Amino acid sequence: MATAEIICIGTELLLGEILNSNAQYLAQELAKLGISHHFQTVVGDNIDRIHQVLAIACNRSQIIITTGGLGPTPDDLTTEAIASFFHTPLQEHPDIWSKIQQDYSRSGRTPTDNNRKQAFLPQGAEILTNSVGTAPGMIWKPYANLLILTFPGVPNELYTMWQEVAVPYLKNNGYVDSVLHSRVLLYWGIPESALASKVEPFFQLTNPTVAPYANYGQARLRITAKAATTAEAMDLIAPVEAQILQLTGADCYGKDDDTLASVVGNQLQARHQTLAIAESCTGGLVGDMLTSIAGSSAYFQGGVISYSNQAKIDLLGVNPHTLATEGAVSAATAQQMAQGVAHALKADWGLSITGIAGPTGATATKPVGLVYIGLYHPHGQVTAQEYRFNPSRGRNWIRRVSACSALDQLRRSFAMIDTPK
Amino acid sequence: MATAEIICIGTELLLGEILNSNAQYLAQELAKLGISHHFQTVVGDNIDRIHQVLAIACNRSQIIITTGGLGPTPDDLTTEAIASFFHTPLQEHPDIWSKIQQDYSRSGRTPTDNNRKQAFLPQGAEILTNSVGTAPGMIWKPYANLLILTFPGVPNELYTMWQEVAVPYLKNNGYVDSVLHSRVLLYWGIPESALASKVEPFFQLTNPTVAPYANYGQARLRITAKAATTAEAMDLIAPVEAQILQLTGADCYGKDDDTLASVVGNQLQARHQTLAIAESCTGGLVGDMLTSIAGSSAYFQGGVISYSNQAKIDLLGVNPHTLATEGAVSAATAQQMAQGVAHALKADWGLSITGIAGPTGATATKPVGLVYIGLYHPHGQVTAQEYRFNPSRGRNWIRRVSACSALDQLRRSFAMIDTPK
Repeated sequence: MATAEIICIGTELLLGEILNSNAQYLAQELAKLGISHHFQTVVGDNIDRIHQVLAIACNRSQIIITTGGLGPTPDDLTTEAIASFFHTPLQEHPDIWSKIQQDYSRSGRTPTDNNRKQAFLPQGAEILTNSVGTAPGMIWKPYANLLILTFPGVPNELYTMWQEVAVPYLKNNGYVDSVLHSRVLLYWGIPESALASKVEPFFQLTNPTVAPYANYGQARLRITAKAATTAEAMDLIAPVEAQILQLTGADCYGKDDDTLASVVGNQLQARHQTLAIAESCTGGLVGDMLTSIAGSSAYFQGGVISYSNQAKIDLLGVNPHTLATEGAVSAATAQQMAQGVAHALKADWGLSITGIAGPTGATATKPVGLVYIGLYHPHGQVTAQEYRFNPSRGRNWIRRVSACSALDQLRRSFAMIDTPK
Repeated sequence: MATAEIICIGTELLLGEILNSNAQYLAQELAKLGISHHFQTVVGDNIDRIHQVLAIACNRSQIIITTGGLGPTPDDLTTEAIASFFHTPLQEHPDIWSKIQQDYSRSGRTPTDNNRKQAFLPQGAEILTNSVGTAPGMIWKPYANLLILTFPGVPNELYTMWQEVAVPYLKNNGYVDSVLHSRVLLYWGIPESALASKVEPFFQLTNPTVAPYANYGQARLRITAKAATTAEAMDLIAPVEAQILQLTGADCYGKDDDTLASVVGNQLQARHQTLAIAESCTGGLVGDMLTSIAGSSAYFQGGVISYSNQAKIDLLGVNPHTLATEGAVSAATAQQMAQGVAHALKADWGLSITGIAGPTGATATKPVGLVYIGLYHPHGQVTAQEYRFNPSRGRNWIRRVSACSALDQLRRSFAMIDTPK
């Protein structure tokens, strides 16, 4: 099998001005196609050094994928460097040049001679069409056992050209004999280690493989199968996924691109119910998560950011006596906030968060990381749950896990209602 | 001058499971120290391929910096691979091993034989102390003209070790003969191209240099000076910064690590005034930005996420007649929201946002991207400003630039009050 190598070209990468997300994207895509790659290189906009890197790459890989250096400025040297490395002249493609002229005239500009150089490719190279920008790439086999694909550095153009042109080309030309397909299961409220020990025997599987990941308090399991087609890979994944879901039950909140906010939103929509929120320490973050989902106005009524005690009293009807005796960060206050916001906004569900995100605000009995989440149910029940997050993780970590825990709390309440007694 | 090369070791990078932020961090740090680097390589956890990469690197660079592969698992091969490449035996450092044992016993665990291998370094190598984790790195000169520094892949450990150990080592051992220092000026409400044309003559400077950047609607200017010391670099920057600030005036909202929320917060605190917010299309994002700043409870009273019309009426006192005639997305509604939230939360300032983030919700006269920002001033004046953001940038981009524009609106109002008439 051919192995691939990624070469990212751009002095801005060497200066650390941008993060090399293109390398990660291509790495993931190559993994999905089952194409191995063992090396990635970053090099600046310098002909000699690009030549050095090409000399190394074409000795150890059969597919070379470059990003960057296809723009119209004198710094953009990729095409020129590749052609001169293989002692091949550049040839103008009039169709590229007229497309560039059209693109420019559409936005009322005139292309310069600099732009014209984008219409040149090494003799024998095919155009790797760019449907979303002016810089095309190339598909070129300078000799039988070497394929070169070049892409612009603009991520959006790279992604589009990869999906529209490169993937079909690789599949139709014998570079792909199997595909990798993954299903990611998403968990909240269970530590990675606890999840891992529940499903440990699955880590021995070879196809599909099962591997745990975690970040920001969210544990994930990735089930990955290798097969001739995506459909066959999905067939390998399905029974393992079903077994894992049976073992891990309610802790799993979704899969793949789901978020806690999208899952909660879908559930509310399916129930024709509405939600209102009252946020103290999260200060609007839960609202931001919910409203980042298009169409959330169908179920999200809004909320109150009750950062001050006065706001809790005036807008949510929290009892001043409760604030005085139990404090703003207490189960009783969380319950009154949840109920108050549901009433104020005429919503079916009320969700509240009050806590100490730090670094200040802790007392002798209430440490940084202490958070209460209150929930008002459509049938009038009000609950509150206490959380103690690790204070050393810092203010914004505590705010984020608090927001996620609040959405998780609501999600689990739906599940409990639905579970037959 | 010695040139450096970065080698990031880890199969997870080749699979695209993680983004290579370590390479960007090191690239920025090397730039700051004025150390050139021309190549970055990523290679998997494989002895032969690590050897191949080392052979290439030590032929073209005099400083090799590695990340990753220092952990306790059998996959972690960096130290072993470097030692065997230079035919040098490994030697145990008892002080490392006792530190590992202490670290483990402190958290009630027992280290395994696997952990013990972290105490071995090539003969002649010094320990690159890790004060925040168990895996130390090495500082090693296998021969006179080659320096090798190894770091773990965990970003936080890399950063700490780099700052605490590597930077002083490089400075004290003749690898640094100058430093780069930068000042970044931050702008909101002026497009990058307009800003660039205001300060164009400065782009010709060579020390300091001035360069424009932009992302998410925020334009920035970076002024970078090279000098023997940071203090001298700052002296070079100061007069250029002053001239640029004079030319660009109120559009500049801050510098370096400032954010619109921190700038607004500092201003409110200095004035002993408070703020309340009413958010529709941003759904809590402005509140999230404000409360991500520690100590924001001193000036932020809270707010209302008035996602539904009913919430605008019930909680903010928006006139139902205004909603019926002008619509929820209108200057009049924005003004009533701003005034309503300031009154409801007894705040000095009231800031409101109402708009159409899309993809749905547009009407014949009100396109996606139309946003009104209302502001209630302490002396009772109420204003509203209309914005028309590019609908093709998508929902979350519109929400983010709306939130930033709202904070910018408030910031500019402070500046106008302060400017002598």
